[in-house]
Amino acid sequence: MKEGEVIARLREIFKPAVRLAGQLKVGIGDDAAVFSAHDSLIATSTDIVTENVHFNRSWSDAKSIGRKVAIANIADIFAMGMKPNFLLVSATIAKSDTDSLFEIARGIQVEAERVDAQVIGGDLSLGDRLTVSITAFGEGERCVLRSGAEPGDDLYLTALPGRSLMGLTQLHQGISVDQECINFHLVPERDWESFERAGKFAKSMIDISDGVAKDAREIARSSRVCIEIDSQLVMKHPDFVAVEKLASKLGLDVLTTILESGEEHTPLFTASPNDRSEVENFAHRIGRVTEGAIGELLLDGDLVEVKGFDHFS
Amino acid sequence: MKEGEVIARLREIFKPAVRLAGQLKVGIGDDAAVFSAHDSLIATSTDIVTENVHFNRSWSDAKSIGRKVAIANIADIFAMGMKPNFLLVSATIAKSDTDSLFEIARGIQVEAERVDAQVIGGDLSLGDRLTVSITAFGEGERCVLRSGAEPGDDLYLTALPGRSLMGLTQLHQGISVDQECINFHLVPERDWESFERAGKFAKSMIDISDGVAKDAREIARSSRVCIEIDSQLVMKHPDFVAVEKLASKLGLDVLTTILESGEEHTPLFTASPNDRSEVENFAHRIGRVTEGAIGELLLDGDLVEVKGFDHFS
Repeated sequence: MKEGEVIARLREIFKPAVRLAGQLKVGIGDDAAVFSAHDSLIATSTDIVTENVHFNRSWSDAKSIGRKVAIANIADIFAMGMKPNFLLVSATIAKSDTDSLFEIARGIQVEAERVDAQVIGGDLSLGDRLTVSITAFGEGERCVLRSGAEPGDDLYLTALPGRSLMGLTQLHQGISVDQECINFHLVPERDWESFERAGKFAKSMIDISDGVAKDAREIARSSRVCIEIDSQLVMKHPDFVAVEKLASKLGLDVLTTILESGEEHTPLFTASPNDRSEVENFAHRIGRVTEGAIGELLLDGDLVEVKGFDHFS
Repeated sequence: MKEGEVIARLREIFKPAVRLAGQLKVGIGDDAAVFSAHDSLIATSTDIVTENVHFNRSWSDAKSIGRKVAIANIADIFAMGMKPNFLLVSATIAKSDTDSLFEIARGIQVEAERVDAQVIGGDLSLGDRLTVSITAFGEGERCVLRSGAEPGDDLYLTALPGRSLMGLTQLHQGISVDQECINFHLVPERDWESFERAGKFAKSMIDISDGVAKDAREIARSSRVCIEIDSQLVMKHPDFVAVEKLASKLGLDVLTTILESGEEHTPLFTASPNDRSEVENFAHRIGRVTEGAIGELLLDGDLVEVKGFDHFS
């Protein structure tokens, strides 16, 4: 069964509660869920990571693991155009491994402090595998969904993806051609300001966690539009030459690397062409939203078969 | 290192964020964390359970596991005197085990529907052990803390604890003297109304998850008071004779069973003696709050050495 089918079945099981219909703004299926509390919108998102699936302790120290899971959650709140404020942290950990727990906590705290957020609670449990689960909260007056893209919109990136996959490739091969990419994969320094800037103009937005291709198609499906990426525009990104050079050293195709690199945690968003002059001050246009093949991604006019990490297939 | 020390060190690591000081009402250390969003208070609590630590798949079917973890979270929100509304659900699960995942989801949904709450999101991941983490939210205009007890208050239970431990004892021994207790331990039907009634009068309240002794001492420590339990009052509880009979069949001391039975998920609370006539309509008085040994629990005047489940010692 594919992950998408698993989630579809879970949506059927978790039926809506009628009394909460007015209060729930965004349910299952976006970067975060959003509900209202009087005049406020509360965004909340959770991520669970487990040893040997999301991280490998021979690659990452415990502090980096803490930073990484905090980043994934913080990115989900920013991807709603909102600002993270509170975090709940849960972990299962071996009895003998409390030192790792504190290192994980220190890593989470590093990232919380970077965005001026605070851990307010959690739960601790024994387990024979290290598992960390974080729930993040954010607050704001509006939220940016995956479903807001309209034909005619421009499609933007800020940073050019690729470094995370190129780091992971080196880790898998046990080589170190470019340590910066390895660090970016393991202990990323994310540019949250780009999310805040994008949030001001974005009609739809997603955190790049599964790769541009999969995440762009996610916007296409949620918005019931077609997303078209133009490789000529991608190649004009100021970092393209650097990424191409390194991809070639690693024997990787540069466009595939850019489109499939996951855990990038930078924004992919659409905005009106009326805002193009302002948006191009901080973002790079790579394509557009059309009325073409609904729910699909095209690259230079050809349908892209979306690959990406799927937990359950 | 004891669990309490572990949590104390985590509190040091997770420093408060100055900008959120006005908005955070309750941080680490109560049943749930509480923050404000304009005029509302949002309570949020998270629980993580893992195979072979919190449940045993030869004892519990997957649906019961889902119900149990939902109950633990829902109880934490009720124990703040608030009403649960939304849930986030995360799980790590083996690839081949998606059927269990759906059963867990159905169990969570049963409990969500009982309190008219809704699952709004979550995260799924592969893992070689089944781990389920739920974050629950509640909303209200006031919250009842563990720290509100004052000398002179009465101490109350609603249901008499003991059945969860007597069920667990039978499971450990592989016997079935009383199936109802086993079911209560595995697939509990909790009386949420008692929390709602208690919440109207409670000055301090806790969800009985670690046992009356440990949880009463938790109120004593948080409120900087002494809690005194009177065994004569406990014995007057209408269910005492039934619990005593069964404890004796299982070779257990009845008072120890009542004081140490965990995962009961019923309220333990203190209220002003001025409200005694109203509170005694739905709750049973078992003791009082005094200025005696601060942070300690006394039973019939003697200091109780609190035993209870500690993950890390």
